[in-house]
Amino acid sequence: MAKENRSIINILDLSVEELDHLMDLADRIEKNKEEYWERCKHKKLATLFFEPSTRTRLSFEAAMLELGGSVLGFAGASSSSAAKGESVADTIETVSNYADIITMRHPKEGAPVVAANHTSVPFINAGDGGHFHPTQTLADLLTIRRCRGELSGLTIGLCGDLKFGRTVHSLIDAMLRYPNNRYILISPEELQLPEYEIEKLKEEGAEFIQTTDLEGSIPELDILYMTRVQKERFFNEEDYLRLKDIYILTKEKLENAKKDMAILHPLPRVNEISVAIDQDERAKYFYQTLCGKQMRMALILYLLGLDQ
Amino acid sequence: MAKENRSIINILDLSVEELDHLMDLADRIEKNKEEYWERCKHKKLATLFFEPSTRTRLSFEAAMLELGGSVLGFAGASSSSAAKGESVADTIETVSNYADIITMRHPKEGAPVVAANHTSVPFINAGDGGHFHPTQTLADLLTIRRCRGELSGLTIGLCGDLKFGRTVHSLIDAMLRYPNNRYILISPEELQLPEYEIEKLKEEGAEFIQTTDLEGSIPELDILYMTRVQKERFFNEEDYLRLKDIYILTKEKLENAKKDMAILHPLPRVNEISVAIDQDERAKYFYQTLCGKQMRMALILYLLGLDQ
Amino acid sequence: MAKENRSIINILDLSVEELDHLMDLADRIEKNKEEYWERCKHKKLATLFFEPSTRTRLSFEAAMLELGGSVLGFAGASSSSAAKGESVADTIETVSNYADIITMRHPKEGAPVVAANHTSVPFINAGDGGHFHPTQTLADLLTIRRCRGELSGLTIGLCGDLKFGRTVHSLIDAMLRYPNNRYILISPEELQLPEYEIEKLKEEGAEFIQTTDLEGSIPELDILYMTRVQKERFFNEEDYLRLKDIYILTKEKLENAKKDMAILHPLPRVNEISVAIDQDERAKYFYQTLCGKQMRMALILYLLGLDQ
Repeated sequence: MAKENRSIINILDLSVEELDHLMDLADRIEKNKEEYWERCKHKKLATLFFEPSTRTRLSFEAAMLELGGSVLGFAGASSSSAAKGESVADTIETVSNYADIITMRHPKEGAPVVAANHTSVPFINAGDGGHFHPTQTLADLLTIRRCRGELSGLTIGLCGDLKFGRTVHSLIDAMLRYPNNRYILISPEELQLPEYEIEKLKEEGAEFIQTTDLEGSIPELDILYMTRVQKERFFNEEDYLRLKDIYILTKEKLENAKKDMAILHPLPRVNEISVAIDQDERAKYFYQTLCGKQMRMALILYLLGLDQ
Repeated sequence: MAKENRSIINILDLSVEELDHLMDLADRIEKNKEEYWERCKHKKLATLFFEPSTRTRLSFEAAMLELGGSVLGFAGASSSSAAKGESVADTIETVSNYADIITMRHPKEGAPVVAANHTSVPFINAGDGGHFHPTQTLADLLTIRRCRGELSGLTIGLCGDLKFGRTVHSLIDAMLRYPNNRYILISPEELQLPEYEIEKLKEEGAEFIQTTDLEGSIPELDILYMTRVQKERFFNEEDYLRLKDIYILTKEKLENAKKDMAILHPLPRVNEISVAIDQDERAKYFYQTLCGKQMRMALILYLLGLDQ
Repeated sequence: MAKENRSIINILDLSVEELDHLMDLADRIEKNKEEYWERCKHKKLATLFFEPSTRTRLSFEAAMLELGGSVLGFAGASSSSAAKGESVADTIETVSNYADIITMRHPKEGAPVVAANHTSVPFINAGDGGHFHPTQTLADLLTIRRCRGELSGLTIGLCGDLKFGRTVHSLIDAMLRYPNNRYILISPEELQLPEYEIEKLKEEGAEFIQTTDLEGSIPELDILYMTRVQKERFFNEEDYLRLKDIYILTKEKLENAKKDMAILHPLPRVNEISVAIDQDERAKYFYQTLCGKQMRMALILYLLGLDQ
């Protein structure tokens, strides 16, 4: 039974035991869908998206509906009272009277902390600017565990924008809690992993390599985590155009990969992974969205104390 | 049993007996949630919001969902056929085929009257421009009755924009139907209660005072109803800036207030009430949103003839 | 039982036997609502509207809710990941993991074909640009069958924008599969039925007349299908203003119409039909929206294999 009004802002808000419990729960849900069909009956999830995100919002909504609960909320700031100058704190105080659990995406880093201080129901951060997005990391962990059977002893390639990509940072933070993983950090020099994340790898004594070479790194990988090089992260168009196409995964680059390597991507993809790869058995990025839905189901159940 | 196709446009569309019945029903719902969990099963509420309003829309949706019904609709004019030039009348004729009860917010005063003429299911006005917003007044009434035990013999302070604030006018209209209430009308001279509302007070022989002094008025109040000074009501920025901060409720101003005074606000708040007051037991504006949800539940049940 | 992952892009994707089955099913639903109240329990419909459309979206949502299912989705491109450059293919791959059946409106012709190639659940085109909109035609067919008892041997007037009006083309395509119907094509010369649709009429040996005269054609009609002359179809304002008002249906023009003629319109209407006609028994355009909801219910049941 989770403690009341638990807020999940960062993946580190969950202990390793809790992560394992949530993954076990997701596996049970996968195998016994019907057992959970009415579990959240009469419960309501509020999805407060101050910034649009189809995938994350629909995933939360699908999760709650598959548990027999219902959903209310908004899909963009223009549909909300924020336009009238209302604070996040006041919105959360109010919505606490309308819903049994709240998830929020907000463009401002720190907004979830404010929300957590004002909610009287469990709260889940669904992404705050370039900061945290814990349920994406939950999706990543379950996908890796299901594809490889475990979360330790793996060689993990992280490729693309390692500087601004919040999903990469969170995934490293989470994987560092499992033993004996190696990290291959593949990016242009301009988009290398920030120093504070490098420090964490060192502190934990994790083996890691920084490289600009995607193709040469592939053969040793168990997991290849691709990310989008986002236009909005660049100061000028020229740098963006020069860099965006370098780390594109193609069929050719996959030739020397392990047969059971798993390719992940937080999506949306623009062109970082050639669509020709979608049919490859190693492509797990759409399966990852299924894992994401099931982890959100597990998290909702856990935070509502309905997991037993 | 409500008559078929009843439309609630203005708080005065409900008799005093009906108001009392709705408040009694809200109290029963509060105490026996489970009795009402399936009451609106197979019923659909349409929420047609031609103008965004998080609070009101989510409150209606939460209300219907807590009754076991479901919800469909839109959250802003850009998502609707209005953009293609469709009339409110045609939208309502159509949606009457999709839902069992309709609620609508529209920026144009008078739109709900058109809607009421074309609906073939019960209809609730969820706000029309600066005109009527009856379910806000239902929320206010229940909050006052629950905080003070009754709706008569009270000294009610109404503070802020009394000229354009539709919630203030509706609340006065409703409270005038209960005996022996005194009204302290606190506002800058530019935003005093309009003459036609003053006339109503006089006609009913109600005791009232017009003043510009918030702090001096507080000690005698049972209820303090604060309102937002809306920027969009002013012709120039200068007047807005000069006036908006005068009627801000602070901890200091509360010092001589009664211990059981209730502070209400229709929300959203910008800065009319210092956040330091949120923890004060007299702050009832978030509780008011809970009362609003329960009154909407009561009203939906009543209009659908499912209140027995 | 429909085959798995059936996609309906065009009305011609359904055989005559299937059309008849769907209409029979809609009639059964009309008579035995309660039998279908829980039929889609635990099923989810995704409504992906990359372009707003109140009527169609709400009709699909109402349909799914009346079958006991639930709904998730978005109401405009700005609320979707399309803004981040995601392809329709990737959106559909993902949403296939969230929903049991998908309906999509997209401004680009051809987008539904891409979607059909990537969905792993049944898919329904809810309109693609000026191209296809099969569920509107299903609504039209049921309305005609219910109003006239059959779909053959009828004289059908089609009036307004016959050049760009996709609903007119689809309705002709569908009606040509039923014998002995006559077509009176009423439009300004600039907006006549395109040659490829004329060819179809000739190939099937259907009797048809092209005319600019609405009033003179009315007396012989069993069905009058009015359409909107859309501003966005014209290259200049002047042409639009000259043509838009010519084919307006008024009480006077109806004087010599048959007593049991049925007037249809795909809606939204701007002013093509005088509101004075709404009270006339022959006005069936709002009833048509009810038929549309019931046909969508039938189609959802059929595609999910839940029609038996």
